Amino acid sequence: MFKKVLVANRGEIALRVIRACKELDVKTVAVYSEADVDSMHVHLADEAICIGPGPSTESYLKMSRIISAAEIANVDAIHPGYGFLSEKAEFAEVCAQCKIKFIGPSARVISMMGDKNVARETALKAGMPITPGSDGIIQTEEEALEWARKIGYPVMVKASAGGGGRGMRPVLNEATLRSSFQAASLEALKCFGDGSMYMEKLVEKPHHIEFQVVADSHGNVVHLGERDCSMQRRNQKIIEECPSPKISAKMRKRMGDATVKLCKEIGYENCGTIEFLVDNKCENFYFMEMNTRIQVEHPITEEVYGCDLIKEQIRIAAGLPLSEHVVDAQPRGHAIECRINAEDPARNFTPSPGKINLWYTSGGRGVRVDTHVYSGYAVPPYYDSMIAKLIVTGATRDIAIRRMRRALGEFTVEGIKTTIPLQSQILTTSDFQNGQYDITWVENFLRQQGL
Amino acid sequence: MFKKVLVANRGEIALRVIRACKELDVKTVAVYSEADVDSMHVHLADEAICIGPGPSTESYLKMSRIISAAEIANVDAIHPGYGFLSEKAEFAEVCAQCKIKFIGPSARVISMMGDKNVARETALKAGMPITPGSDGIIQTEEEALEWARKIGYPVMVKASAGGGGRGMRPVLNEATLRSSFQAASLEALKCFGDGSMYMEKLVEKPHHIEFQVVADSHGNVVHLGERDCSMQRRNQKIIEECPSPKISAKMRKRMGDATVKLCKEIGYENCGTIEFLVDNKCENFYFMEMNTRIQVEHPITEEVYGCDLIKEQIRIAAGLPLSEHVVDAQPRGHAIECRINAEDPARNFTPSPGKINLWYTSGGRGVRVDTHVYSGYAVPPYYDSMIAKLIVTGATRDIAIRRMRRALGEFTVEGIKTTIPLQSQILTTSDFQNGQYDITWVENFLRQQGL
Repeated sequence: MFKKVLVANRGEIALRVIRACKELDVKTVAVYSEADVDSMHVHLADEAICIGPGPSTESYLKMSRIISAAEIANVDAIHPGYGFLSEKAEFAEVCAQCKIKFIGPSARVISMMGDKNVARETALKAGMPITPGSDGIIQTEEEALEWARKIGYPVMVKASAGGGGRGMRPVLNEATLRSSFQAASLEALKCFGDGSMYMEKLVEKPHHIEFQVVADSHGNVVHLGERDCSMQRRNQKIIEECPSPKISAKMRKRMGDATVKLCKEIGYENCGTIEFLVDNKCENFYFMEMNTRIQVEHPITEEVYGCDLIKEQIRIAAGLPLSEHVVDAQPRGHAIECRINAEDPARNFTPSPGKINLWYTSGGRGVRVDTHVYSGYAVPPYYDSMIAKLIVTGATRDIAIRRMRRALGEFTVEGIKTTIPLQSQILTTSDFQNGQYDITWVENFLRQQGL
Repeated sequence: MFKKVLVANRGEIALRVIRACKELDVKTVAVYSEADVDSMHVHLADEAICIGPGPSTESYLKMSRIISAAEIANVDAIHPGYGFLSEKAEFAEVCAQCKIKFIGPSARVISMMGDKNVARETALKAGMPITPGSDGIIQTEEEALEWARKIGYPVMVKASAGGGGRGMRPVLNEATLRSSFQAASLEALKCFGDGSMYMEKLVEKPHHIEFQVVADSHGNVVHLGERDCSMQRRNQKIIEECPSPKISAKMRKRMGDATVKLCKEIGYENCGTIEFLVDNKCENFYFMEMNTRIQVEHPITEEVYGCDLIKEQIRIAAGLPLSEHVVDAQPRGHAIECRINAEDPARNFTPSPGKINLWYTSGGRGVRVDTHVYSGYAVPPYYDSMIAKLIVTGATRDIAIRRMRRALGEFTVEGIKTTIPLQSQILTTSDFQNGQYDITWVENFLRQQGL
């Protein structure tokens, strides 16, 4: 096992990794920007190193500074969390050159799955269904028009380097193709430094279903079921649940088998997630992309399957086989996560940074809170607006929903705006309670509410 | 199901019951003393009624005031929590007369099991092993001497009305019998208003093992395994775990069967706990007492068996059958609870009430916190010193221990003294880690530490 791990991230995921390391008797090194000096991850790590000013391009995205910190602190390994450098093949490469273990898959696998277009081809080769789409990258608007005619509208234009919904646009007809193609490409260039695009057939009113996979360096690959992340606003997940209310045991088996097969074929090592689009009737599934890192919503899988995915990541990177309780994991009950964001839904979800005067987190049976925030903490303006993850587990889906409503009701945040009231409202709808929602649901709901 | 429930308690258990009611769509009424106006249970209930000054004899123990509050608020039922009126048969009786459902067993069963001496006889009749002891109540010191000679030293003198370790004393030889008998009887008179005593053979270095039972009004009785509560100081539990590291599957079956049999024979309805002494080698078990109410340490059973015992209590009282996931409950993993007390271990565990300036509770995977406390809350001097329960769950006992150490490490309380440092220290001992402890362990450990 490693002696010391540097956590190249911030916020709740940095804290999550530090907690896992503590439970493994591994020392931790936090890195932080000047804006994050009061964050709980800095306080709870064994050592903490400041790596620059607030903006992430000056700190959390600055490879050289993170590597310097790792060398100064003399760590064995780096955990990248999610976002930031977690899916940068170059960073994994640099770590390898510096003889620091990157807790994640090889740079080769990251770049293979990070290029969404190559990933599609790889999935196809592994026998996985994919939506009809362009063969590789589309260079020009003319090429895009041609492909769209061939595939048939509606289509989706997508950035090769995309993720988190950035760099993608649905296109319903020829009239809007040029402008959407251009806008998405520009956005991708801005977000990922790469504007290359491809195209897929748009699956109408689909479900976003993703499978959690865990794969070690000894060839063991298991999947831990699915998460339903169809509750999205502008491709940003806001509520996730495990298992999905829409996936039958038969579909789960088909999708799980395909997931394991793909991971075996690419020699995957790490926790990872394969995201699928599932058609509205839940009869067909299509490979969307693979995330070669831990995901925000991993706790709902942990709660249902009784495991610890961050510890598995660390164990795998240290060359250990999957732990027994992951290999033999059996699902029990139902879990739901709400991402508590510092945003104002009434003002088009504009970020709401600032000082939190009162912070009371929910507790009791079946409630888990992952957060770096506390009473008196000031949310900095530089980063993702998520300030906490509220996770509940219950013996049945109905119990979990009631528990989440209760837990959202007692969660108290004063000083800034959050998404809590909106999530409370969504939980009371009969659509959510009956599991009748697809990825278009949230936008429709918001429109109805005049938001 | 009930429409409205009054919670006749305070602190974390009042909050626990309110949370369960919220998840069942049942309205709640909190009662509170003048000292508890800022407690979270008052804040989170739908209604709150002040029932008197701080001292519990003037408020939480005042039956007439609680019944008045129940009538004013027009509730269907009263949940008594633990302590206070939870095992007062008279209170259950008064509730019945007022046509308010007491969430617990009948007054008849409460008095039968509440009189420790009658309980012993009842257990014996149900075929349960009991320690050799006096036949019924001992009136005088002379009678006590005679019984002790017959049973053989060491013996334990115990109050019929006892509980929580009050009104009991070990007696190693004839020299100390008179004084111990007198002291215990006086203590029982003071605590319970009843000084009548009986005697049992003292089992040397035993384990305190208790079985959780759930029984409905339709004759269904199931047990949910055992909790090991041998980590005690002066008969007060400080750390509990589920399952016990010392109980074999065979012992579990024997003890579980005996538990279910006794509950069936007395027509028990409610959640309940049968406490056993188990000899040091874990080969024999002896009935100690039955608690006809929910216990402080119930969450570790909930976490391992995936159920909600407070909701079961409410369902049972409402005449519903046990829920399916309790009937079919299968244990998974290991759970540990630390009772966080506002006490100063360095000053003989004197209570440490006062204002809490900073309160940061642990979070993340496998961590549950039950507490009515928050930053800025002042612990009143009138009540039990427990201010929070920290419960962790892991796939294995080793994981749970590491998680508890991590969780205790990040739990931050400023302004008052707590037992957290002591519990952290206990968790690091090889005795605890190897599961090698009995009910004498804590006192020996404290002596070694000079505490």
